[in-house]
Amino acid sequence: MPAYQYVHDVMLRDCEPSGIVFLPRYFDMVHTVIENWLDEALDWPISQILGSDGLTMPFVNINAEFPAPSRLGDRLTWRLSVRELRRSSLWIELSATTGAERRVTITGTLVLSEAIALRTRRWPDPIAERIKEYLVAAEAKSGKQVAE
Amino acid sequence: MPAYQYVHDVMLRDCEPSGIVFLPRYFDMVHTVIENWLDEALDWPISQILGSDGLTMPFVNINAEFPAPSRLGDRLTWRLSVRELRRSSLWIELSATTGAERRVTITGTLVLSEAIALRTRRWPDPIAERIKEYLVAAEAKSGKQVAE
Amino acid sequence: MPAYQYVHDVMLRDCEPSGIVFLPRYFDMVHTVIENWLDEALDWPISQILGSDGLTMPFVNINAEFPAPSRLGDRLTWRLSVRELRRSSLWIELSATTGAERRVTITGTLVLSEAIALRTRRWPDPIAERIKEYLVAAEAKSGKQVAE
Amino acid sequence: MPAYQYVHDVMLRDCEPSGIVFLPRYFDMVHTVIENWLDEALDWPISQILGSDGLTMPFVNINAEFPAPSRLGDRLTWRLSVRELRRSSLWIELSATTGAERRVTITGTLVLSEAIALRTRRWPDPIAERIKEYLVAAEAKSGKQVAE
Repeated sequence: MPAYQYVHDVMLRDCEPSGIVFLPRYFDMVHTVIENWLDEALDWPISQILGSDGLTMPFVNINAEFPAPSRLGDRLTWRLSVRELRRSSLWIELSATTGAERRVTITGTLVLSEAIALRTRRWPDPIAERIKEYLVAAEAKSGKQVAE
Repeated sequence: MPAYQYVHDVMLRDCEPSGIVFLPRYFDMVHTVIENWLDEALDWPISQILGSDGLTMPFVNINAEFPAPSRLGDRLTWRLSVRELRRSSLWIELSATTGAERRVTITGTLVLSEAIALRTRRWPDPIAERIKEYLVAAEAKSGKQVAE
Repeated sequence: MPAYQYVHDVMLRDCEPSGIVFLPRYFDMVHTVIENWLDEALDWPISQILGSDGLTMPFVNINAEFPAPSRLGDRLTWRLSVRELRRSSLWIELSATTGAERRVTITGTLVLSEAIALRTRRWPDPIAERIKEYLVAAEAKSGKQVAE
Repeated sequence: MPAYQYVHDVMLRDCEPSGIVFLPRYFDMVHTVIENWLDEALDWPISQILGSDGLTMPFVNINAEFPAPSRLGDRLTWRLSVRELRRSSLWIELSATTGAERRVTITGTLVLSEAIALRTRRWPDPIAERIKEYLVAAEAKSGKQVAE
């Protein structure tokens, strides 16, 4: 299975007074997973993307389901896969589980853009090659959009 | 038009080094809008919901589109409306615009729950009455889910 | 009294599961107060400082006391004054109170720098003039460093 | 040398549009270091402290120096030591370096308190024993307060 994995233990900064993870903090985790994937799996650190490459990679859409809340101290195992690699965008899926329980399912589209003009840009070829290693099989993404 | 409005100027804490708003910070703004709506429009401050009422109100799903990026200093006008009021949940929509330009469109479902057991709870009647003032007309939400 | 004031109600994003404000969130508030002061009192918005002016203004030191914790829903009245205006830096003090109770006292030094090279820069003259309106009287800052 | 170490690579969420770390994010890192130290070195995870133990551990003061800014992608090596173990509080020091360059020096006091009443509490004996392993030698903290 071609998923990149990242483990995050829920910390004080992630939680609100109910003791559960505060929605925006899930998206901080999502970005942490993506930045670590870019660095470790694609060998393309975000500091290079924004720095010498003069690029940026914002989300243009995101869909998320939170079937169960997470609490302080929970160990979340995040998985990232690629649903589709397009000319200058990437449709990715992420999930977070604690043991057998699903906590988060997210799909979203990242667009590669010039940092100044925000015009879209083609993926550099060696990066596109490495991204393909995380593509989910075609049948895995048929059915409903956020199916596992 | 039954939308609650909230103006937020994009600050340093909202932006990443590309100079554009960092995705998770949009969701911080979303929560700020919701908490101000609860307080000002529903007269039901979050400190009471989590405090004496012993309740919490997490998102169980969220769909967001970001047609254009926002930058430091942009004045975002947020609007919140209710698409559907259910027994113990709320399907809301939020948008953020700068002038005539749409920056964010979000729909999501909040569930009213007991803070400890996280069992769902009916909306208190007076709160439900006030929520109804923000319901969008039926025709406005036909068509695609995140239509304006 | 030459203090700039800013009111902030403690929100979900500010608090951790104990129900009290999470230390780093106080520093988010500090930055919100400073950015609003720059904009409203000095007519020098942070988007201009970092944008067309090509400058930045990081802290080089900060001292803070938290005599009592703050909780969700507390109304914090922040006050900002200037203890000393130097060639390219600013020694400021901020405090937050709820009613008669002091919650935070902070002093810190901001340095005006070029955004790229991070070399220090003199304050523009009209800005320096406006800053002087927030100077605390000499006697007020004698004695201990964080005296009110 | 009795310091606990924690490595953090500066990420998008840590930085503002100047490309340097945003002050409040340093304090997020400080808390991450402390929570990992509590868990890994003291075997006393924050989820237990706030959960079954019914305690909390807020800062009552903090002093910080930032001799040089940090940028996206910088690898920060954080070190935590204990300057003084008191009945119900802890005077700690933290530093962050990148290579030979000092980026942050922080000292601060954490107070162990009951989560509800916020009355101070004695350190549990086994925890106090483990804390002592991180005490800096007496001579190391003489002289100026934030000496290494």
